[in-house]
Amino acid sequence: MGEKVIPDIVVGRLPIYLRALQRMHEENRKVTSSQELGERLGISAAQIRKDLSQFGEFGKQGTGYSIEYLAEQINQILKVDRVWDIAVIGAGDIGSAVARYQGFANRGLRVAMIFDSDPSKVGTQVGTFTVQDSRNVEEVIREAGIQIAMIATPSQTAQSVAEQLINAGVKAILNYAPINLTVPDEVRVQYIDPVIHLQRMTYYL
Amino acid sequence: MGEKVIPDIVVGRLPIYLRALQRMHEENRKVTSSQELGERLGISAAQIRKDLSQFGEFGKQGTGYSIEYLAEQINQILKVDRVWDIAVIGAGDIGSAVARYQGFANRGLRVAMIFDSDPSKVGTQVGTFTVQDSRNVEEVIREAGIQIAMIATPSQTAQSVAEQLINAGVKAILNYAPINLTVPDEVRVQYIDPVIHLQRMTYYL
Repeated sequence: MGEKVIPDIVVGRLPIYLRALQRMHEENRKVTSSQELGERLGISAAQIRKDLSQFGEFGKQGTGYSIEYLAEQINQILKVDRVWDIAVIGAGDIGSAVARYQGFANRGLRVAMIFDSDPSKVGTQVGTFTVQDSRNVEEVIREAGIQIAMIATPSQTAQSVAEQLINAGVKAILNYAPINLTVPDEVRVQYIDPVIHLQRMTYYL
Repeated sequence: MGEKVIPDIVVGRLPIYLRALQRMHEENRKVTSSQELGERLGISAAQIRKDLSQFGEFGKQGTGYSIEYLAEQINQILKVDRVWDIAVIGAGDIGSAVARYQGFANRGLRVAMIFDSDPSKVGTQVGTFTVQDSRNVEEVIREAGIQIAMIATPSQTAQSVAEQLINAGVKAILNYAPINLTVPDEVRVQYIDPVIHLQRMTYYL
């Protein structure tokens, strides 16, 4: 870690390994192997060993990996051994569903606030949150020191929302709006668009 | 096309190109270049040209691509020049949001039905759909000839739901449950888990 630059594609597989390890841990399993992980995930055992070796030595030849230890190590590598607050922008169907999503718990993430520009939504409840006015996004996020946001606005406003977020100090954006964002190099963007995933499969039908 | 096997990673970029082309088309643009597409998408122009060349000749050196023509061609390649019906399993927050999502229109996809196992949800309305009883999933999907499904159930039931879907003839599954599915080789699965995307970014914070 530290000095060596790890390819982003490798970093991108770590959360998948972590999710599988956490599930094994919930199943009260103690030890696993790159073979077993690979079979669960449809990734070759050699790939998994190679990926993990980029970050250190986590298992012994022949004895496999301690599930708890390896999960802890990946938690640290991904910096989810703490809890990151997330701001959600857009309180429509998707934003509301994401704000109420229970799956962030124990995975180092927590929705902390939700915003919308529609006056009829501002002040209403979404799960445990009161929808805040989008006009205050920059100020509120800067003050809270939040670095992670999810954009669930219409496509037309996603770019300008992203710019406000970045001004407020956000460094990581998960964008549900079906449009590519232009951001400075130091800001990371990931995309969720079900159509992109579905069209990748219709090709094979 | 046809005989040559195209790497799935290349197939996976086509929907992203298509989305950008459709947006340009909405902006009344006529012609684009691999350079411009690349800048919009953060992909190199050379990569885009190489990807497209796997499927045919879509532009002329120096004059660029006709946006409408290239979009039509990619629509055909991805088989979204028709409309595919999709079944949604799970009428919780995520399933309901996806069933009501407006973003499938004009992209070759349409939600056709939604199921839930909770008797208090069966018979209620989600958007324009009446929630159907999950016990009838296999029969209803087989009869409708549906090949694409989205799973938005709790993790614990996702695998058994997938097996029912596959029995019913489903060949492509978009899984929102945060668990890896085990499926036969001829079935495609894609995953949407916001935590996986977010943890890929926390690494860099």
